[in-house]
Amino acid sequence: MTGALTAERILDAAEDTLRRFGPGKTTVVDVARSLGVSHGSVYRHFPNKAALRDAVAERWLQRICVPLHPVVTEDGPAAERAWRWLWLLSTTKREMASNDPELFATYYALASEIREVVSDHLETLTELLARIVADGVRRGEFAVDDPRETARTMLSATTKFHHPAHAAEWADPNLDREFETVWELVRRGLETR
Amino acid sequence: MTGALTAERILDAAEDTLRRFGPGKTTVVDVARSLGVSHGSVYRHFPNKAALRDAVAERWLQRICVPLHPVVTEDGPAAERAWRWLWLLSTTKREMASNDPELFATYYALASEIREVVSDHLETLTELLARIVADGVRRGEFAVDDPRETARTMLSATTKFHHPAHAAEWADPNLDREFETVWELVRRGLETR
Repeated sequence: MTGALTAERILDAAEDTLRRFGPGKTTVVDVARSLGVSHGSVYRHFPNKAALRDAVAERWLQRICVPLHPVVTEDGPAAERAWRWLWLLSTTKREMASNDPELFATYYALASEIREVVSDHLETLTELLARIVADGVRRGEFAVDDPRETARTMLSATTKFHHPAHAAEWADPNLDREFETVWELVRRGLETR
Repeated sequence: MTGALTAERILDAAEDTLRRFGPGKTTVVDVARSLGVSHGSVYRHFPNKAALRDAVAERWLQRICVPLHPVVTEDGPAAERAWRWLWLLSTTKREMASNDPELFATYYALASEIREVVSDHLETLTELLARIVADGVRRGEFAVDDPRETARTMLSATTKFHHPAHAAEWADPNLDREFETVWELVRRGLETR
């Protein structure tokens, strides 16, 4: 091995090992071996297999959030930003699934083992979108009592376009059109009368 | 074997064989054997394995539609009927999944092999719901240009509550509440101003 053994390098190796062996069969020893280090060296960064697995999954889920943050803090009509935010959430997932279907399927299989990490991720998404919704209420665009609950509802109504269980349906040429019709219904449901 | 070999009896046996062996491994010979008849007798009703498989799946999908038909032809506010129709679609699936999880998972696995049967089923659902939506337009309740497209959009927005890919999430105690918030958003989106 050349260079310092950083947490980032371990996570890269773990992702690679996961892709090859699947979530059930990946061990800390496999990860250490692929880096040419002892498993003790890996444990100095991650106390156990579960901690390593959660850190890999968290990094993956954070990648999904990267393009979403700027849309939250931008100026402009909330409806346009909420549309763009949901569109980015959908297209980021869809690109991940089409660029590396195997890794995407691996992370989706992993998700059932890391329910807490996934539910934290959903809370983060809800909170980001809720800030746009609250902005829409302040601007007089949206008639909404509880922006957080509304954000959760919007994520639920757009499930088909971002939930990995639907990856097999994402190649449908009508999907973009369907996204737009769902968005139109949601937008009308949010608007002040 | 006692009694006549009807198509219905063959379908019952095929469902049972599917449950035991899974969709990939079920053969016409297995089905015939479980009925104590020759596979030739089965072929007199279903010309090949694919025809038998499709007929089993169609029967299963028709069971889901049974409680939905009366809601379409009833009188009363369209919003209330659309809510009830979607609620019945969701709860019928959820009951099937919870009463016999193994058979439900089998049919869901089968669905990827019978895309045409599944898309016909979705068309049937869309058509049923579209009749309620069109009724809502006639009654002055809904502002909708294309009831069929709107019905498809409503099915898409409620994916999480009826698509078998979400069966693992259906035990969530917050699911009924989430259904209601999605429905409220959809209803507001449909209503005339």
